[in-house]
Amino acid sequence: MNRAVTILTDFGTRDGYVAAMKGVMASIAPGTALVDVAHDVRPGDVAGAAWILRRYWHLFPVDTVHLAVVDPGVGTARRALAARIGGRFFVAPDNGILSWALHEAELDAAVSLDQPRYRREEVAPTFHGRDIFAPAAAHLSAGVPLADLGSPLIHPVRLPLPDTIRRGNEVEGRVVQVDRFGNLITSIPSAWVQPLLEQGDVRTLIGRHDLGTIRRTYGDVEEGEPVAIIGSDLTVEVAVREGRAADLLKVGLGTAVIVRQAGPPSDSGDQA
Amino acid sequence: MNRAVTILTDFGTRDGYVAAMKGVMASIAPGTALVDVAHDVRPGDVAGAAWILRRYWHLFPVDTVHLAVVDPGVGTARRALAARIGGRFFVAPDNGILSWALHEAELDAAVSLDQPRYRREEVAPTFHGRDIFAPAAAHLSAGVPLADLGSPLIHPVRLPLPDTIRRGNEVEGRVVQVDRFGNLITSIPSAWVQPLLEQGDVRTLIGRHDLGTIRRTYGDVEEGEPVAIIGSDLTVEVAVREGRAADLLKVGLGTAVIVRQAGPPSDSGDQA
Amino acid sequence: MNRAVTILTDFGTRDGYVAAMKGVMASIAPGTALVDVAHDVRPGDVAGAAWILRRYWHLFPVDTVHLAVVDPGVGTARRALAARIGGRFFVAPDNGILSWALHEAELDAAVSLDQPRYRREEVAPTFHGRDIFAPAAAHLSAGVPLADLGSPLIHPVRLPLPDTIRRGNEVEGRVVQVDRFGNLITSIPSAWVQPLLEQGDVRTLIGRHDLGTIRRTYGDVEEGEPVAIIGSDLTVEVAVREGRAADLLKVGLGTAVIVRQAGPPSDSGDQA
Repeated sequence: MNRAVTILTDFGTRDGYVAAMKGVMASIAPGTALVDVAHDVRPGDVAGAAWILRRYWHLFPVDTVHLAVVDPGVGTARRALAARIGGRFFVAPDNGILSWALHEAELDAAVSLDQPRYRREEVAPTFHGRDIFAPAAAHLSAGVPLADLGSPLIHPVRLPLPDTIRRGNEVEGRVVQVDRFGNLITSIPSAWVQPLLEQGDVRTLIGRHDLGTIRRTYGDVEEGEPVAIIGSDLTVEVAVREGRAADLLKVGLGTAVIVRQAGPPSDSGDQA
Repeated sequence: MNRAVTILTDFGTRDGYVAAMKGVMASIAPGTALVDVAHDVRPGDVAGAAWILRRYWHLFPVDTVHLAVVDPGVGTARRALAARIGGRFFVAPDNGILSWALHEAELDAAVSLDQPRYRREEVAPTFHGRDIFAPAAAHLSAGVPLADLGSPLIHPVRLPLPDTIRRGNEVEGRVVQVDRFGNLITSIPSAWVQPLLEQGDVRTLIGRHDLGTIRRTYGDVEEGEPVAIIGSDLTVEVAVREGRAADLLKVGLGTAVIVRQAGPPSDSGDQA
Repeated sequence: MNRAVTILTDFGTRDGYVAAMKGVMASIAPGTALVDVAHDVRPGDVAGAAWILRRYWHLFPVDTVHLAVVDPGVGTARRALAARIGGRFFVAPDNGILSWALHEAELDAAVSLDQPRYRREEVAPTFHGRDIFAPAAAHLSAGVPLADLGSPLIHPVRLPLPDTIRRGNEVEGRVVQVDRFGNLITSIPSAWVQPLLEQGDVRTLIGRHDLGTIRRTYGDVEEGEPVAIIGSDLTVEVAVREGRAADLLKVGLGTAVIVRQAGPPSDSGDQA
């Protein structure tokens, strides 16, 4: 049985570009399960797509092929790659879209998709999704070895990940995603917050707001109230019970978030 | 072969939450057919989702697993359930989302999803879709008996369905959905209207409008004209030929609709 | 194994209409791979859907069933059809949605879907997608011969395709699609432009703009600059590097585009 292929793009569905990719894959690897992730990534938002990938790639079985085409650089010199990370296959432009996956798991191998045999015969300079990436994903699905797809690629592009730092009795990170519900997902790993929580109460500072300690879930505050929790990505998340944190707190992507031990007021003046 | 799983959520696709659920299911029950229904349900609109479910659940083969996660109460005390209704399996929060299915078919059995063995090891308080519902759906797909998933749940939550009443020579219901085309779908079953139609002409009253009798289809009126028909859900529907009834008539969800025998003016003054 | 079925509609996903179609197909042809193309075609935009179909139909394997339901005429006298074109099956309203496919490949056979045995028992006058088209697609998927689905249909409806003409040293066409990225896809085939390019430089005229010659890709101009290229559909396309051509040039669907040999100013005064 072929390996399943997940598909993440910023192509929308309405224009038929994703369908073209699916057609190419169905022709190369008939019967492959094609799993839609999303096609409504903000056009060209590579960093956002990298975070979304972080959310699901490891939940699929080993050997799954993750195809991710958010590719503002199509038609320039950026490379196309296939990689194996943490046991899963990835096919994507080499523009940093795999940064979070590379941050959290080991790179087993990567190749530049330069082997013409595994591309479509004619490669349109503006649609590598159809002519390079979809064929590569389908061939991996059908069992072609990664190394056959092209020459070794040692250092895939990595985006600078948002500053997330520990200092003394506090940790500081950034809002890395505003989700559909207006929740503010941050880069602060729960593992960094846990030691602070074990020593007593904490305060969570975002924008000009002090949300108090980390709660367990939305239901631990009143409707309309903001709350800091450990989110489902195992990072600190700021939400509003039955409301939209992004709107209520008027903060967004990139905002600094600090979790600090409570107790006597700190003398630090570095709140964002 | 595994049972197919349909997926209905209000998660959007852009954030990767649905993909996380798909990954969990692909890992538990490899090869399961995952059928996207919709992920753009209005956030938290349980009643709307219940009506959408009514439209498709019974059209799938017996044994299909219908996963439906519109869950504004995640992180509160609401239960999680799996049920068998009319031969199909359902996995959902116990918040009324199955109300229409329960109204139209028999509840064979239901359980509360409290058996840890069939959840993910760590359950995030804010993402039961990934950690409780998706695993339950996948285990049902793979053949785990419903009863193994948790303890019996006797009375699933039922939302009050919209008032739909018969009195003398008229029936009254409500607009239960405004669809993408602006059509107004009502709760009035065609079976209630049929006897009136057999006795002669009827009038259809909605808001301040009298649409006359029930026609067969949109094409029975001129372009831009409103028309009452028996819709594809076998309830009364108000549409505008090549137009949007919701906009033209300026009515929406919850508006009262009356179908009344025509003839000498009725002395009733209860028009909505 | 059943033939895969691709699905293109303007139904949106939110109302559950597409899910109803999928349920009908899953019941008739269990295990069939259902491939979502798009459900967000502009409501009633038959010509737009015809172009989208052009983009993917031929990329799928021979024998694929392409189901395409953009059907503003549902409930009028328009016919429902199944056809075989270029080896693939198509199931659609007979309203011109297959025009581009018919333009580019040979019609092998077509039938009117008038055989009640292959419809749902009750056909709602307003939802042929569920009651006529989905059953036909599923039966084709399961191997029912095309000819069994109904009586022969000799002349499927063809929309007038946009004027695309050659005269002397120029070709003229129209913008046939504005895609999600704001790119302007035109009807001018690359095969018509090639001979001009071989004779020297060309100029590309759109609206009041002269974009100069045809480049290879977006990267051949500066950021924010417009550029004419041979697009991935093998027609002339106008784009803006990291920008939206439709917005920058303020032109849209139907705009005339001319590619003309450069050199001494032409005496023609017919620029659009």
